Amino acid sequence: MYAHLWGTFETRALFEETGRLQSWLDILVALARAQADLGIIPRHAADAIAGQARVELLDLDHVAEETRRTSHSTLGLIRGLQQILPEQAREHVYFGATVQDLTDTWFGIVMREVGSLLREDLRSVEAVLLQLASRHRDTVMAGRTHGQPGAPVTFGFKVAGWADEIRRHIERLHEGRDRWAVGQLGGAVGVLGFFEGDGLELRRLFCRHLRLADPGISWLTSRDRPAEFAGVLAMICGTLARVGADVYELQRPEIGELREPAPPGGVSSITMPHKRNPENSEHLDTLARLARGNAGILLEGMVQQHERDGRGWKAEWVALPEICLLTARAVRTAHDLLAGLEVDPDAMAANVTRHGDRMASERVLAALSERLGKHRAQAVLQDVLREQGAGADLAAALQDRGLATQEEIRTWVRRSAVGTAGRMVDDVVHRGHRAREQEPQTWR
Amino acid sequence: MYAHLWGTFETRALFEETGRLQSWLDILVALARAQADLGIIPRHAADAIAGQARVELLDLDHVAEETRRTSHSTLGLIRGLQQILPEQAREHVYFGATVQDLTDTWFGIVMREVGSLLREDLRSVEAVLLQLASRHRDTVMAGRTHGQPGAPVTFGFKVAGWADEIRRHIERLHEGRDRWAVGQLGGAVGVLGFFEGDGLELRRLFCRHLRLADPGISWLTSRDRPAEFAGVLAMICGTLARVGADVYELQRPEIGELREPAPPGGVSSITMPHKRNPENSEHLDTLARLARGNAGILLEGMVQQHERDGRGWKAEWVALPEICLLTARAVRTAHDLLAGLEVDPDAMAANVTRHGDRMASERVLAALSERLGKHRAQAVLQDVLREQGAGADLAAALQDRGLATQEEIRTWVRRSAVGTAGRMVDDVVHRGHRAREQEPQTWR
Amino acid sequence: MYAHLWGTFETRALFEETGRLQSWLDILVALARAQADLGIIPRHAADAIAGQARVELLDLDHVAEETRRTSHSTLGLIRGLQQILPEQAREHVYFGATVQDLTDTWFGIVMREVGSLLREDLRSVEAVLLQLASRHRDTVMAGRTHGQPGAPVTFGFKVAGWADEIRRHIERLHEGRDRWAVGQLGGAVGVLGFFEGDGLELRRLFCRHLRLADPGISWLTSRDRPAEFAGVLAMICGTLARVGADVYELQRPEIGELREPAPPGGVSSITMPHKRNPENSEHLDTLARLARGNAGILLEGMVQQHERDGRGWKAEWVALPEICLLTARAVRTAHDLLAGLEVDPDAMAANVTRHGDRMASERVLAALSERLGKHRAQAVLQDVLREQGAGADLAAALQDRGLATQEEIRTWVRRSAVGTAGRMVDDVVHRGHRAREQEPQTWR
Amino acid sequence: MYAHLWGTFETRALFEETGRLQSWLDILVALARAQADLGIIPRHAADAIAGQARVELLDLDHVAEETRRTSHSTLGLIRGLQQILPEQAREHVYFGATVQDLTDTWFGIVMREVGSLLREDLRSVEAVLLQLASRHRDTVMAGRTHGQPGAPVTFGFKVAGWADEIRRHIERLHEGRDRWAVGQLGGAVGVLGFFEGDGLELRRLFCRHLRLADPGISWLTSRDRPAEFAGVLAMICGTLARVGADVYELQRPEIGELREPAPPGGVSSITMPHKRNPENSEHLDTLARLARGNAGILLEGMVQQHERDGRGWKAEWVALPEICLLTARAVRTAHDLLAGLEVDPDAMAANVTRHGDRMASERVLAALSERLGKHRAQAVLQDVLREQGAGADLAAALQDRGLATQEEIRTWVRRSAVGTAGRMVDDVVHRGHRAREQEPQTWR
Repeated sequence: MYAHLWGTFETRALFEETGRLQSWLDILVALARAQADLGIIPRHAADAIAGQARVELLDLDHVAEETRRTSHSTLGLIRGLQQILPEQAREHVYFGATVQDLTDTWFGIVMREVGSLLREDLRSVEAVLLQLASRHRDTVMAGRTHGQPGAPVTFGFKVAGWADEIRRHIERLHEGRDRWAVGQLGGAVGVLGFFEGDGLELRRLFCRHLRLADPGISWLTSRDRPAEFAGVLAMICGTLARVGADVYELQRPEIGELREPAPPGGVSSITMPHKRNPENSEHLDTLARLARGNAGILLEGMVQQHERDGRGWKAEWVALPEICLLTARAVRTAHDLLAGLEVDPDAMAANVTRHGDRMASERVLAALSERLGKHRAQAVLQDVLREQGAGADLAAALQDRGLATQEEIRTWVRRSAVGTAGRMVDDVVHRGHRAREQEPQTWR
Repeated sequence: MYAHLWGTFETRALFEETGRLQSWLDILVALARAQADLGIIPRHAADAIAGQARVELLDLDHVAEETRRTSHSTLGLIRGLQQILPEQAREHVYFGATVQDLTDTWFGIVMREVGSLLREDLRSVEAVLLQLASRHRDTVMAGRTHGQPGAPVTFGFKVAGWADEIRRHIERLHEGRDRWAVGQLGGAVGVLGFFEGDGLELRRLFCRHLRLADPGISWLTSRDRPAEFAGVLAMICGTLARVGADVYELQRPEIGELREPAPPGGVSSITMPHKRNPENSEHLDTLARLARGNAGILLEGMVQQHERDGRGWKAEWVALPEICLLTARAVRTAHDLLAGLEVDPDAMAANVTRHGDRMASERVLAALSERLGKHRAQAVLQDVLREQGAGADLAAALQDRGLATQEEIRTWVRRSAVGTAGRMVDDVVHRGHRAREQEPQTWR
Repeated sequence: MYAHLWGTFETRALFEETGRLQSWLDILVALARAQADLGIIPRHAADAIAGQARVELLDLDHVAEETRRTSHSTLGLIRGLQQILPEQAREHVYFGATVQDLTDTWFGIVMREVGSLLREDLRSVEAVLLQLASRHRDTVMAGRTHGQPGAPVTFGFKVAGWADEIRRHIERLHEGRDRWAVGQLGGAVGVLGFFEGDGLELRRLFCRHLRLADPGISWLTSRDRPAEFAGVLAMICGTLARVGADVYELQRPEIGELREPAPPGGVSSITMPHKRNPENSEHLDTLARLARGNAGILLEGMVQQHERDGRGWKAEWVALPEICLLTARAVRTAHDLLAGLEVDPDAMAANVTRHGDRMASERVLAALSERLGKHRAQAVLQDVLREQGAGADLAAALQDRGLATQEEIRTWVRRSAVGTAGRMVDDVVHRGHRAREQEPQTWR
Repeated sequence: MYAHLWGTFETRALFEETGRLQSWLDILVALARAQADLGIIPRHAADAIAGQARVELLDLDHVAEETRRTSHSTLGLIRGLQQILPEQAREHVYFGATVQDLTDTWFGIVMREVGSLLREDLRSVEAVLLQLASRHRDTVMAGRTHGQPGAPVTFGFKVAGWADEIRRHIERLHEGRDRWAVGQLGGAVGVLGFFEGDGLELRRLFCRHLRLADPGISWLTSRDRPAEFAGVLAMICGTLARVGADVYELQRPEIGELREPAPPGGVSSITMPHKRNPENSEHLDTLARLARGNAGILLEGMVQQHERDGRGWKAEWVALPEICLLTARAVRTAHDLLAGLEVDPDAMAANVTRHGDRMASERVLAALSERLGKHRAQAVLQDVLREQGAGADLAAALQDRGLATQEEIRTWVRRSAVGTAGRMVDDVVHRGHRAREQEPQTWR
């Protein structure tokens, strides 16, 4: 009922039982092919395996039952596959490999596929953000620090900060890709003892059949790959939760500057029919929490013993799929949220002036600094503002003290106060577009 | 009393109060210089600031008292500095900057310096590992999976796996470096409103004076930089804790294959004078736990609101220094541990044969597979071994069943069983040396 | 295929879609009944709801589709239920309640039921442990500190330490129970505004129908209940992982003191048929890691805003069920592991003497302390042992130095060295049994 | 400079080097006294130890140097103490104890003392909250769900929810106290082998001298005590961060309902002199993050091996003091924040009416439900509100549709809408006062 909240169609297809099993079968096919290439098993056996290794042909109840009965993670699958293989191929399936060869190679595929999906979706997010940043390059709004409105910024500046962060994540996916998309073939303890001299050549072919890189050395207890991948995913979720946090807060009716799109047919609240809740922006935060939890598990999983250590390894079985599902959902949700984001420049402008001249205190400070020195100017302003409290009439107070005429202060307040916001936007947008042009649209 | 357990001399110097304050003063000097370059403040003021900005000249008690009194993070420091500046320079210090400009720029410096220290120390660790791997390329030892001895590997193979992981960390430090070593100058809300048109040029010069990259856009609430940096550090600690775990376990007297060096004068146990505890290998695990905790905090810190968000930001003040100290300690400890590691090849050899032919079950399975088919061979072996239990005489049992002669079995068992361990070592060592030759020894 | 690894039959029944939906329907029935009791809705409507609120009557596809279409968590269910209600009852279902009334009340039920299941299973674990502790009260084995054998303990002493920890967890479940098993009925914002004056009486009846305590005040954003519950569960998993760690390590063939039971039909390793892996003891560690991750999410979830905060709340939807499933699995697995644990007293005894007199260094130190003073005695022993290394002949060395005769040393070494281990066992076993007698066997 | 942000005077005194060392010395004195009571060491030696065991008499440089030189955690201290003891007492100090006896007993003291401090401060927080809740029992304000104003609550209701949570924490401190305030005396491996038959009696006296409970059995690797204690502390911080979050958000000038007290002399922002930042409410969040990190480390530390395991144990040395300091700071900060909290009932009232009749949608729904049935009423309201958007004139729209007259709607909207908020406040306040009367003010 709620699966759509925690994953996407594409990632669920990868991780749900049939998708996972099919991927495992594909790996068994690649192994058989590589072994046939080297004459380790007969070619006809490899062909038969390739022909039958389809999840829809398996008796999945039998597979599950044998898995439980043997307490072995893959023996059920093997027996299920043997059942549908011709007699003469049965002995040649899963030849000399071990569970982790299967599961780690699958992890390599998963990290490649999910990395690729995420990169595409992140680029779509980036496209929306670059457009938003350009469109609102000069849309002035209150900057807020510590939850309090301060000097103004532009909405484009805010968005450009998001886009810049997304771009760095795309870079991280790019940099890590070759480390992650590797196969595993090590046999019992990683040295390929089953195959004697053929081992390395076999591994090379096996990886090539699957379009994975050869790892060079077995990584059975070397788990920096999934840990790093999960770290990048958790960071992606972190950025999107930050975007969500801003949308959530700026969507408060008391602020009213942004509004996330409402799905047609959506009902926010049964008990309070008037409400339109920021469901998607808040869900980005939820997803980021869960992603961090899983990333922590994968990080802890790096501390392993000897040549195989089930403790951290089995935890990966849960945590890696989870974080992939969650992150894919987060990127997709963020995209839809941003693509339909309603921006209210009037509300933004109104909020800048709503609190009076006080919001311009940085500008007045700058001007007054030329006259009094910066720290003296600051002390004076602090005094005035503290004395008068929320309703401070800055201009009157400074005039009373003989520090500036009302007119001067008006001029200072009116000066374009958003500094170099626009030029920073230009810089980010320019760099973003250039990077996009120089990279392929898809890794597939 | 225990500071040496949780940091190194160099990193403590960076983070302890005087080191930190001096670094902040250096940043104020760079700001003043850049402002003098652009005529924003007088050159003589910048010179005066540069001349006096030395922590040993400050009245630190006064600084601390003002910090508490104002509840402001830098006002104490500024007033302390103003105290020792000539009258005409006082107004020109910390001109238009804000706390976070100071602390984030310091973070940029810290990430550069600590990254550089760690890289050097990691390369020293790598050098020791490559040597160990080469020396023990063919030192046969029991591979262990799930804590149980299985088919043999070589000690060099084990070490090469560690080295491979360390090399990837060096790569990660390299890839992230340009993202991390950036300055921050944004003023009140990040748009440099104080400086009007000069802002971006000022930031460029400011960063250049500090040998930091210009960030392009302010990153006040864009905290992927410290989060990513901390993630890499926690992964480094994870790898070293893995090394520690193997040393710890293989140092058990019942196994006795490795022994960590005992510091001269060290006392392991008062109550049990005979003991020599694996203090350093276990400390690597302790450090990794603490590092993970801090990395988690920095990751959570990415979710920020608006243009400044004290909640995650202040948490970074604790967590980033902590993780730097811990990781620096871990790398140094690991180096000393590995450089003095005592390896006992005889104990390794003895442990391989100690459990009889059973450990060769992968080899026997391979050979028998040619005769019976692989899955049938496995079923037979499983039966024999289950029946006979720990004392199984594999050769006798297979002969009894007419599956092989004793002599055949002897041959199978004797066959070099460590597969391609040596060639994987060669590959890692070769790649490691090549990478080392192509990169500078130091980033300083 | 792997569901049996991550939960138990009973907990899966609670959390899987149909079980969860049925529980939600039961809550709707309780609400309708309480409302009929107070005349808020007609009695016939409550009866009709009670008659139809069975998950097997619902069109679950329609429920799921409406859930997605409305983006509302319970509207799908309500419409599905209305579909099968008689016309005159349709308007009276889910009257004035809100999603969180349903989900939090369900959490109250879940915490009660899972708490009850865990307590029963923990008491079974405790029963096994108390028996083991008594049986092995005097079974001498090497105590190990920092992974190194030291002075002897008894296996019963080790087990009693486990039992003592389990007993404290049972206490914690007891203490927290009344805090956790509470209902929630607050309406839109927690003040029961829909019902005017009847609200509190309605909540009282609603909770009573469900055998839950009345919370006194709404706890919509007061999430210490699930956070605390999860904390206790994660601690339970921590204890069981500690038990697992000892079994795992003591099962190493090089130590050989314990052996976990092998499931009939189980296959440890395909590639190494001789192996019998400590699958269950290591799985306890895996479960504890995942449990900690979820507990952390629930702890973070305590920081909420205003009267409802979807960010932490929705994360609970994932993390609370997960930690219940994982912990239930851990307790059951630990029980089976311990109930079938093979203890090898001969191996234990052999390991005590295997490393010579050195293991008795605490006893020799005690005796020598009477002669030389304690710190001098320690310094002497340290010297001797350091000089002679692993093969130290303590007796000879002390005699050479004129500090004791061989005979004296023999006497010291032979003295019962396990101190008060047995009496501590007696104490734990006695307290355990007394506590068990004074408490009900089941909470159901 | 910043120590005041991360601890309190009292807790720093406990944990800083001299405080910690003095506490360790006190433990050595208690040990010597208990040993003299049993004739294990001479009474004069115990007296001499008691006379000299004062940190100000020690040569702390020498202690630190010996600590580093021996790599032993307490040998430096012992030698430092021996230096200032009369000759005939030197051999009788630290007799038969081990490091962990000292550090765990200190943990017992720390948990007792910090528990006691926190309880007192939490009761002060509770006192402020109960007063605030009573005073604002009927101060109507907007309830907010998902960050959006909805049906009204009262400020007293909100505060009562906080108070209720604090009360549960006081209960938890009470329940756990006897589990935490225990001593440790186990010698080398926990069985008190050094002392033969006297061990248990010695432990009993030792604990009694320190006003700690006797643990019954050694808990060297049974770390649920610190893990649980830390869990409670992290939950306390969680509640306070929740309070902080509400203050932070409601202090936004756009909402303006609450304002945290500004410290006299405090400066919020140098660059924006007009600002008054919610520094303390946001710091509560920062403290909670760090506390969670440390709680996680202590929870992970429960998984230990054998009879002593330095990995988790040493991590406790960092994490337990940290979480005590952080939590003490959080409770004190929360107290000051709440004691000086500025509540603006006018702003609260204004925000309720500001968004028009829409906020009363729950009331209108209730009334209309009597006429149309609840789900039909909801559908109608949803339609009207969706059609008309933010400016919806509910009364006009319902009249247009012939569903109610303007006058009826006015009546519905005007009806007291805060439900049973006041009665829930009464309940919490009553229970709180009753509990306070029945418990001692202090545990000291």
